Order: sequence, then C-alpha cells, then structure tokens
Amino acid sequence: MTRSQHNWSVPETEVVQRIHRRLETGGDDVLATIVDVEGNAYRRPGAKMLLDEGGEGVGSITAGCLEDELLRTAEDVRETGRPELVTYDLMEDDDDVWGLGVGCNGIIDVLLEPLTERYRPAVEAFDAGRDVAVLTVVADGHAPPAGDVPADETAPSAEDAATDGDESGSLEFGDRAYYYPDEDRFSVPADAGSDASAWPVDALTGPAEQLADRGRGNVVSLGDGLEVFVDGIAAPAELIVFGSGHDVGPVTELAAANDFRVTVVGFRGAVDLDERFPDADRTVTTSPGTLEDDLTFDDRTYAVVMTHNFVDDRLAVEALLDSPAPYVGLMGPTERFDEMLEAFADDGIHYDEDDLSSLYTPIGLDLGGGSPYQIAHSIVAEVLAVENDRDPDHLRSRAGHIHDRIEIEASSSDGS
Amino acid sequence: MTRSQHNWSVPETEVVQRIHRRLETGGDDVLATIVDVEGNAYRRPGAKMLLDEGGEGVGSITAGCLEDELLRTAEDVRETGRPELVTYDLMEDDDDVWGLGVGCNGIIDVLLEPLTERYRPAVEAFDAGRDVAVLTVVADGHAPPAGDVPADETAPSAEDAATDGDESGSLEFGDRAYYYPDEDRFSVPADAGSDASAWPVDALTGPAEQLADRGRGNVVSLGDGLEVFVDGIAAPAELIVFGSGHDVGPVTELAAANDFRVTVVGFRGAVDLDERFPDADRTVTTSPGTLEDDLTFDDRTYAVVMTHNFVDDRLAVEALLDSPAPYVGLMGPTERFDEMLEAFADDGIHYDEDDLSSLYTPIGLDLGGGSPYQIAHSIVAEVLAVENDRDPDHLRSRAGHIHDRIEIEASSSDGS
Repeated sequence: MTRSQHNWSVPETEVVQRIHRRLETGGDDVLATIVDVEGNAYRRPGAKMLLDEGGEGVGSITAGCLEDELLRTAEDVRETGRPELVTYDLMEDDDDVWGLGVGCNGIIDVLLEPLTERYRPAVEAFDAGRDVAVLTVVADGHAPPAGDVPADETAPSAEDAATDGDESGSLEFGDRAYYYPDEDRFSVPADAGSDASAWPVDALTGPAEQLADRGRGNVVSLGDGLEVFVDGIAAPAELIVFGSGHDVGPVTELAAANDFRVTVVGFRGAVDLDERFPDADRTVTTSPGTLEDDLTFDDRTYAVVMTHNFVDDRLAVEALLDSPAPYVGLMGPTERFDEMLEAFADDGIHYDEDDLSSLYTPIGLDLGGGSPYQIAHSIVAEVLAVENDRDPDHLRSRAGHIHDRIEIEASSSDGS
Repeated sequence: MTRSQHNWSVPETEVVQRIHRRLETGGDDVLATIVDVEGNAYRRPGAKMLLDEGGEGVGSITAGCLEDELLRTAEDVRETGRPELVTYDLMEDDDDVWGLGVGCNGIIDVLLEPLTERYRPAVEAFDAGRDVAVLTVVADGHAPPAGDVPADETAPSAEDAATDGDESGSLEFGDRAYYYPDEDRFSVPADAGSDASAWPVDALTGPAEQLADRGRGNVVSLGDGLEVFVDGIAAPAELIVFGSGHDVGPVTELAAANDFRVTVVGFRGAVDLDERFPDADRTVTTSPGTLEDDLTFDDRTYAVVMTHNFVDDRLAVEALLDSPAPYVGLMGPTERFDEMLEAFADDGIHYDEDDLSSLYTPIGLDLGGGSPYQIAHSIVAEVLAVENDRDPDHLRSRAGHIHDRIEIEASSSDGS
C-alpha cells in the first residue's frame, strides 16, 4: 500500500506528532479543534486540524466541506495572534440544505488558536503515553454566552458564588489549563493568561478525568455563563504483537494506521525486528525467563499472540491472562487452545470463564478472508471493537447514533 | 503506513501480478501451490508462493514454518524441470507436535512446478478480470494414488469406461488444462503434455465452474486413481468508491490491500484522481448524465458511496440499486437516507425491503472508531463480510471451522 495522498486523512497520532514537530521547528501555524457539534458531523468534538502558512492542512475536521473556510479564518487568527471560536452553521450555508452532504450538515463550533508553546504540555503528555485534558475557556460569561442559558443562571446562586463565582470572573475567553489524571494534577501554564486560583478546579476535575480517559471532548457549563471546553486526549492504546513471522507485518501496519502504539515482541534470536516491522513504535526481543521484566501490561494493553510456536504462545498467554489487559487475541483454532488449557492444567493452572473473558481465540472478526492482509484486517477490526466496547455488527443493524454521544456535566456548581 | 517488509505478506493480487511480471522478464522461478490440507492450516488450498533462484519468495503458503523447506524442494524442481507433488507431514515433523504451532500443524500437499508459459493463461485471465480454473493432474492412476481409493474403484466401471476410462489412461501427472466459466470453455495448452480428448471434461466442468467462481481450490477424484487439482482463481471483486474527498484515500488504500480491484469515481471537475489515489486500479470522472455509460455494475461490484453531496450520492445509489451489485454502502446517518427515500418517492421511485437488502447505511461495521482510517477500516471490514457471506461476529463466538471447508465431487463418473 502507498501512503494516501493529502495530509488530511492521516492517523490521529500523526496529527499530534506533526503539532509537536511544528513546535520544534517553529512556524506560524494555527490549530483548529472541533468544540461542539449539532446535527450529523463526520468528526467529533476534539478532532483537530493543523493549518500552516502555506494553506496546507494536516488532519481533518469535516469531510472536506469546511476546510477551505477554515484556512481563511486561520489567516485572521494568524494576524491577530488571538484564538477565535467560530460557529459554522452549515444548515443555512447552502440553498440546498443537503447540498453539502453528510459531515457538512450541522452546526459546528471550532476553536482556532495560534500554535504556541502554550500547547506543548498536551503533545508532551501524548508522547509520554499519558492521558491529558486540555481546558480552554470558550465563554467567559462577561458577555452573554453563545449557547442559551436559563435566566436564573445569569445571576450566580449563593452556592456558585461560594464555589467559584468570584474567581471565574477573572477567566477570559481563550484561557488555558491542563489536567493530568495520573497525578490528579490541575496545571495552568505561566503564559496561559490566568492563574490557577481563577479556575473552578473542583467542578472541572471530574469531567476532565473522564474525558481524558475516553479521549473525548465536551463543553462543560459552570454557571454564570462560564463555559470550558475540555478536550480529552487519551494516550494511544498499546497493541503488543507477540511473534516475528512475516504475517506480523500486516497486523503492525494496520494497527498503526488505526492509532495504536505498536510493539512487536520476538522471542529468542528474533533479529532485525526494527527493520522488518517499520510501522512498529518499538520492538522487543525477549525470552521465557525475562518476559515479565521486559514487558508491562495494563488496562490499555491489547495483545495479539501469533508466534506460531505453542510454547511461546503459552508463555505469552499465561502472562497476559494474569494481567489487566482487556484483549488477548490468540491465533489458531479452538482445538489448539483446548490443548493449551490442558497443558496449563497439567501444571496446576486453572482458568475460569471470568479469567478467559479477555481471551479471543480463534482471533479476529469473522470476515471470511484468507490472505495475510485479510486476516490482519479482521484482527485489527476486533481489537477496535473491543477497545471501543462495541458489538461488531453492521451499523445499519444498530439503533441510535453512530457516535454514541456522551453528556458530561460539571460535577458541581452546574447552576441548578 | 509503510509497505511491510518481506514479500511474503502481500495482497494475493500482487502474487499473481508478480507471476505475470516474471513470465515477461523470464527467470528460473518455481511456483508452489497448496493442493490439499489435513488439520489446521494457516492458508487454504490454492494459496501460492513464487520462489526465485535467489531463494526469495513472494506470497506465503504457511505462516513461515514450511517456507524454508519449500525453497530446498524448489531447487530440485528447478534442476529436473518437472513438477512435483510434495507432502509435508508436520505432525511428525517435530518431537513436540505443537512445537511448530498453528499453520504448521497438519499434513500439507504442495504442488511445485517450474514457472513457464504453461501458466500464462491463468495470469492473463486474472488480469482480464475473468474467473479461471487451473486444472492439474496430481495422480494419474498409473501407480496407486496417494489417497486411499476404495477397491471397487481400481477397476473402472462400464460407465467410467464409457465416459473417460480409456482416455484418462493417457493423462500423466502434471498435465495441465484450463476452464473458463464465462465461455464454458475447456482448454488444453499445446505444450501442456496432453490433448483435450484425454481429459474427462464432463466430470470436471461442474467442479471447475464452482471453484473458479469461489476462488477456491479442491482435489477432484475421477475414479481409476485419477485425481485432478482444480485451482479456482476468481477475478478480484471490484470496489467502486464514489467520491473524491480526502476520506476516500484510506478506503482505497485498505481495499487494495484486501485484494479488491479499486475504482475511484469523481463527479464533474474532480481532478488529479490518479495522483491523489495511487492505490486505485483506475479512476473515472463522470457526470450525472453519463454515469450509466461510464460504469457497469455486476454481481461482483461492491460500491461505497461517499461523495458527501446529497445529489451525487442519490444518483449513485439509484443506479446501484437498479443493478445486481451485492453491496451498496452509503456514508451518512439513517436520517439522511430517509430524506433520500422521500426525494425518490417525490419522483415516483419506490423501493421495497428486498430492493434495499443490498443497501448498507450507516456504512460499515460498528467498531466505534472515529478517525478517517478507523472509518475506512470498518467500511472495508463490512465489504469483506458481505463478499464472503459472513456474519461479522467474533470468531470465538462462531462454531465450526474458521475456513468453511467445501467438498466438491466430480459431477459424474465419481466411482460409485
């Protein structure tokens, strides 16, 4: 396969990596992030596009119907050096409501900001494999906010005042803060235009933690017309592939394209792994004795076991079933795993149904393909479904929205 | 993504294309094809690997456990210039039966033959988009065949004699013929070592037609110990993508990797399609008036409609629903298609449930991904499932074999 043309359709991880590179090399870029969506959008809140001076974009926010207008708006932001929240009402944007089509049929709020050091904490957390929430004041309540706010909220309640009513007044549109769930730390960069005391930290911690974990974005209303966009950026899940056979290549390639951080693990003597699996973020050569030392598995670890060697497969499966890894895919027929269970039993190791809930064998979704790429496609499709907790049926058979919308409210002081 | 290392894991179409190139450039290559499998194999009968003089292989037959031995056997074939049928009994191949693991645990019959002009009809049919069956005598009955044959079969019945008993005697191991379902034509190349009269055409036509259509391989027993391996090579299915937005790139890229012949269709003024979609086999720029002239849809046409323009989407959907295309995927929410149905109704066009059985909207499997690549992955996964007539559930939830085995017997004179 050839990398597709245009930088627009790139894996999300590449967008963040590009942002990081541009921070290093400098440049007068503008970062656009979807803040809110009404109607049917192609992308969700949190989707990003980096726009450079030359009018080139990396990443996508819609299916191509808005990008040109974004480039124009970016010019203003580049000139003023100040962030802007722009609402694109695509319902009215065309005499044929449907003319712009799917992904263009809705009202989309987009935050555009000059890419500066102010954003560095986000990309550094991402690179370090840490979840992070990027918080931006999108309505400071000084003027009536864009969204409708019930009358009673315009006057802060005693409770609001007690919590954050006073300080929130000092927050300005565009002010920026970060929240790191792993340290439960709320951080305001020195040059972010405000100090920590101004932020309703208690009210924002809950939503920030949830959204960072899910990698989703949402606007949180805090009363007094104060609205903060919480852009949760989840560290990419890790896909660990046990095996170094030629059939590992397509799995690595497709997993990377789907934003997994890919690790290829070869046993003993496996050589040239970096060279042979260029899409892997890292490769590890391990041995039975050192497996547990060389690798750590957590609840973001998705594992594909395909060494084609019974002994090595068994070692990996045993270590993974003892871990919180939510997905352990084992290549091979059911009969082979039955043999493995017997081998475990011979050593006094017994698994109950619950222990095996994370084990998927035969591996993959039933797509019927028999080529190495088709097998890899069905494996990566299964991992995606498990990661997103979906029942991998046809979407046409599924009721409700394609993107399950999440409503997260401020955990307190949400004017009510 | 980067093309994965190793020529082993390449799309099947690339294996056939490589065979064609080697026929053009010349070279002393050996073609290996899986003829039969007992036990659990990684690949099915018909899987191919091209082995060149340098010991390099293109394509794969197992998951890496047999390729080295194949290279050695290929040396003999290269020296003698004669085809060989080799049985690899991997059950006995290792003191630890499971040591070689999945894909290596079984008995595999492999046909190795020098790559000569004798094979050209197969690749030319493939390139022309025609199904073809490659027939090879793997047991000529002169000596007791490898497989067990009931005693009564060793003496030809009167019926057998009448049909092909006499001529079949003149067929030798390695003799080659071709069958073209579209012309119902049975063809024996001049240099294929036999003449048409020697072949039990009536008995082979049925199996050859079915296997060519399914792209599957199977050994057909014809009595008297005569066994013919029928290697059905189905022309790749065509995936037609309607749209020229940046989100078309990943769909094109992933469909090509999964062996679809990909056509990208842009409406009016779509430019640089070839350059922008390098993975497409062809690109077409059409307009509402000429759509039906520019494109033909048959029962091997899988279509993805994602122009993001309601009018263009509607034109494509109308043309496709009137065709035998088994899959019409339409991007966008259910509500949007409801609007489309209303627009059709306003023009007096009505579809019943049966008409819409081929329509998949929202498009794709429910994998929960939101990035352009994740969306494309779910679309191509759905197309594969429909093409292979599978229910796209987890394989661990599915009873029976991963590869549904097909038993096809000679339609007549199958000694009984």
